[in-house]
Amino acid sequence: MERVLEQKFTIEYQYNVFFTKGLFSLGNNLFKNFLTVHSNPGFKQKILFVIDEGFMDAHPNLAEQIRNYFMESEDFILASEPLVIPGGEICKNDPTCLDNIIQAVDQYGIDRHSYIVGIGGGAILDLVGFAATISHRGIKHIRIPTTVLSQNDSGVGVKNSVNFKGKKNFLGTFAPPKAVFNDFEFLETLDERSWIAGVSEAIKVALIKDLSFYEWIENNAEKIKERNSSEMEDLIFRCADKHLEHIRNGDPFELGSSRPLDFGHWSAHKLEQMTDFEVLHGEAVSIGISIDVLYSYLIGNITREEAFRVVELMNKLGLPIYHPILDTEEARFILLSGLLDFQEHLGGKLTIVLLEKLGVGKDYHHLDYLLVLKTLDLLKNFCQDQNPVYEAS
Amino acid sequence: MERVLEQKFTIEYQYNVFFTKGLFSLGNNLFKNFLTVHSNPGFKQKILFVIDEGFMDAHPNLAEQIRNYFMESEDFILASEPLVIPGGEICKNDPTCLDNIIQAVDQYGIDRHSYIVGIGGGAILDLVGFAATISHRGIKHIRIPTTVLSQNDSGVGVKNSVNFKGKKNFLGTFAPPKAVFNDFEFLETLDERSWIAGVSEAIKVALIKDLSFYEWIENNAEKIKERNSSEMEDLIFRCADKHLEHIRNGDPFELGSSRPLDFGHWSAHKLEQMTDFEVLHGEAVSIGISIDVLYSYLIGNITREEAFRVVELMNKLGLPIYHPILDTEEARFILLSGLLDFQEHLGGKLTIVLLEKLGVGKDYHHLDYLLVLKTLDLLKNFCQDQNPVYEAS
Ligand SMILES: NC(=O)c1ccc[n+]([C@@H]2O[C@H](COP(=O)([O-])OP(=O)(O)OC[C@H]3O[C@@H](n4cnc5c(N)ncnc54)[C@H](O)[C@@H]3O)[C@@H](O)[C@H]2O)c1
Ligand SMILES: NC(=O)c1ccc[n+]([C@@H]2O[C@H](COP(=O)([O-])OP(=O)(O)OC[C@H]3O[C@@H](n4cnc5c(N)ncnc54)[C@H](O)[C@@H]3O)[C@@H](O)[C@H]2O)c1
Ligand SMILES: [Zn+2]
Ligand SMILES: [Zn+2]
Repeated sequence: MERVLEQKFTIEYQYNVFFTKGLFSLGNNLFKNFLTVHSNPGFKQKILFVIDEGFMDAHPNLAEQIRNYFMESEDFILASEPLVIPGGEICKNDPTCLDNIIQAVDQYGIDRHSYIVGIGGGAILDLVGFAATISHRGIKHIRIPTTVLSQNDSGVGVKNSVNFKGKKNFLGTFAPPKAVFNDFEFLETLDERSWIAGVSEAIKVALIKDLSFYEWIENNAEKIKERNSSEMEDLIFRCADKHLEHIRNGDPFELGSSRPLDFGHWSAHKLEQMTDFEVLHGEAVSIGISIDVLYSYLIGNITREEAFRVVELMNKLGLPIYHPILDTEEARFILLSGLLDFQEHLGGKLTIVLLEKLGVGKDYHHLDYLLVLKTLDLLKNFCQDQNPVYEAS
Repeated sequence: MERVLEQKFTIEYQYNVFFTKGLFSLGNNLFKNFLTVHSNPGFKQKILFVIDEGFMDAHPNLAEQIRNYFMESEDFILASEPLVIPGGEICKNDPTCLDNIIQAVDQYGIDRHSYIVGIGGGAILDLVGFAATISHRGIKHIRIPTTVLSQNDSGVGVKNSVNFKGKKNFLGTFAPPKAVFNDFEFLETLDERSWIAGVSEAIKVALIKDLSFYEWIENNAEKIKERNSSEMEDLIFRCADKHLEHIRNGDPFELGSSRPLDFGHWSAHKLEQMTDFEVLHGEAVSIGISIDVLYSYLIGNITREEAFRVVELMNKLGLPIYHPILDTEEARFILLSGLLDFQEHLGGKLTIVLLEKLGVGKDYHHLDYLLVLKTLDLLKNFCQDQNPVYEAS
């Protein structure tokens, strides 16, 4: 005798991405108001801040500012002094960083009605999100991204992760934050490389989804390079918007194989690993986009002019489009193995997005190794002709 | 200038709980059919089995049976020999068990289109579910529960977890399985204690939600105690059904504070810890229910007769209703601290479900310590009068 019980339910996810300046200055009530709206009357909710050490060093008054900001709060208390954790890939590689956050959850009695707030680059946010979503089966987390990349891409999405024995993002969860606060002033202390690196994610999303956004980036490239330009603010806003739109209309928790937002990423992930993360994520994506754009030209989807128009844009912005590590044959084989890793992480059929035309992405299930190698030669030649910023630095 | 982007989407979760016998016998196509329906044409999906060592010892032919079962499968391949992991709480306590599963995911290239299948008691299923849901941000997992408790309660739900430094279920996820297969024959090798322990979860759900189910259990208590009775099959089916119904109509991922399915559990969790898990989960729940039922009597919600009717039922089934470790004052204080742990894990206000009347639960936000102590005295006296099974063993 066989019987079956059927189970079915839906869960609704909702969060806002706020754009502001001076988030923790006393006159700015955005963050406080958010917390108050979500407070639990008669019960003081705890907040644990976890802060990127690199960001903290550049903003030495931050801890005090936060303390003052919460001084007179009725509904919330700081669980402890902020936990300061080394920023960058190291915090996703070193299991003690994850452990330290989980320990703090235990030590300070952070519960499912408390908040863990991550402040920092994409790496810290990935780590804090993961720690929060697995502690007590999910503590609410808030993201405060402090890099261009995390404000316009990684910080506004639903993915959390750490590396496992060097394997990038091997462990993680899909779990949206409760809110994201983007403070444009936090970006002032970024060095030139990080400032510009995040722009490649905007080019990425524009190329596969929005030709007019792409053209806007081209037309404003000079101004975007400038620090504190309102064009950079607009770029971050539009890019974040495109990412959010894609997530909600697509496949938020990536149950299928198609991941258009990973345009340019199959080689980028590999390149980060190969250079021991000396190449920044956004820089690797810039090279990855260059490869995939040229590949799209080589298979006849776009013209040579269109392909090099994209490469030129990246070059003009100061983004790298090639890396000398790719000069050797061995390195090129390792790069190609990124296609296999990509398939494995996604599972199922290999699915790579390429350009159908400028502004429109399209899934492909096979890449020709020889054509990929050819894109590398084209990019290398381009660099030799142009003597681009990256190789000169 | 402040701007905001709003994000909102829903995710639908769906899975079936199948009841069968001889799941891996060659004539039984239930499991194969499930996999085929969910297969990816032209692509061989991998399956990794993780099996409870205690269950494996009792079913020494299982690995071979599974090998034969998949021998001629077109769409699926076994990723490797089954991973065998010690069953019981040890596998949730020892981080190397989690690590071994994650290592296997890496080593055998288990991807998001593969399946990890856990076979075993609630502890193994909690562990395997957790490992699967954090690997590659979520590999599909299938549960094959092999204890009464896991077939009627833990295995059919949406929670996964491991312990962290001895803290029960400190790390975990809410992530439903893709399917659950309950094979009644797998229960044949359970010892007497485990066989009956899981019945307390049925009494729990009946007491708070379904008086007629409770009365059915009373009327069939003798037969339920018997091995391989069809009454036990019915009890498991009805109990699983009630749990599934509660999950889908309630708050599947427990975003609020109310957790009626945790009736009797605040003290049970503590008691398991205090006895170093010598007391089984179901046994601890039986004691926990006894405490909360007497408490419901002491605050006037049910009569003394009703309260002791429940205690008698448990006693008659051979379930413990008290534990001698609770004789000392120190131990009683530790037990009471379970209320604080419970609040912390849930977060926010303490919320404990008690009986409003038989068959109906009700949330309370405060428990009177002295009244809890009184329930312990009443239960101890009851045991001394009755010389119940538990103390005699
Ligand atoms: N979750 C996702 O969807 C997603 C998407 C893309 C990338 N990522 C991840 O994001 C990470 C990269 O993030 P990132 O590019 O933001 O860099 P990062 O987090 O690696 O930080 C780079 C460095 O900048 C420092 N820093 C951060 N903010 C600063 C500031 N305002 N001023 C001065 N220094 C500052 C950090 O301390 C660190 O040393 C990678 O781990 C990548 O995998 C995640
Ligand atoms: N996820 C949830 O919602 C949830 C709910 C309740 C309980 N739980 C968890 O479930 C666990 C308890 O599970 P359990 O009671 O199923 O026991 P268990 O998993 O602890 O297993 C008990 C013992 O029985 C052995 N065993 C399992 N099946 C057997 C069989 N058929 N024949 C012989 N031996 C067998 C195991 O090897 C183990 O030694 C606890 O960790 C508890 O926290 C989880
Ligand atoms: Zn990226
Ligand atoms: Zn239970």
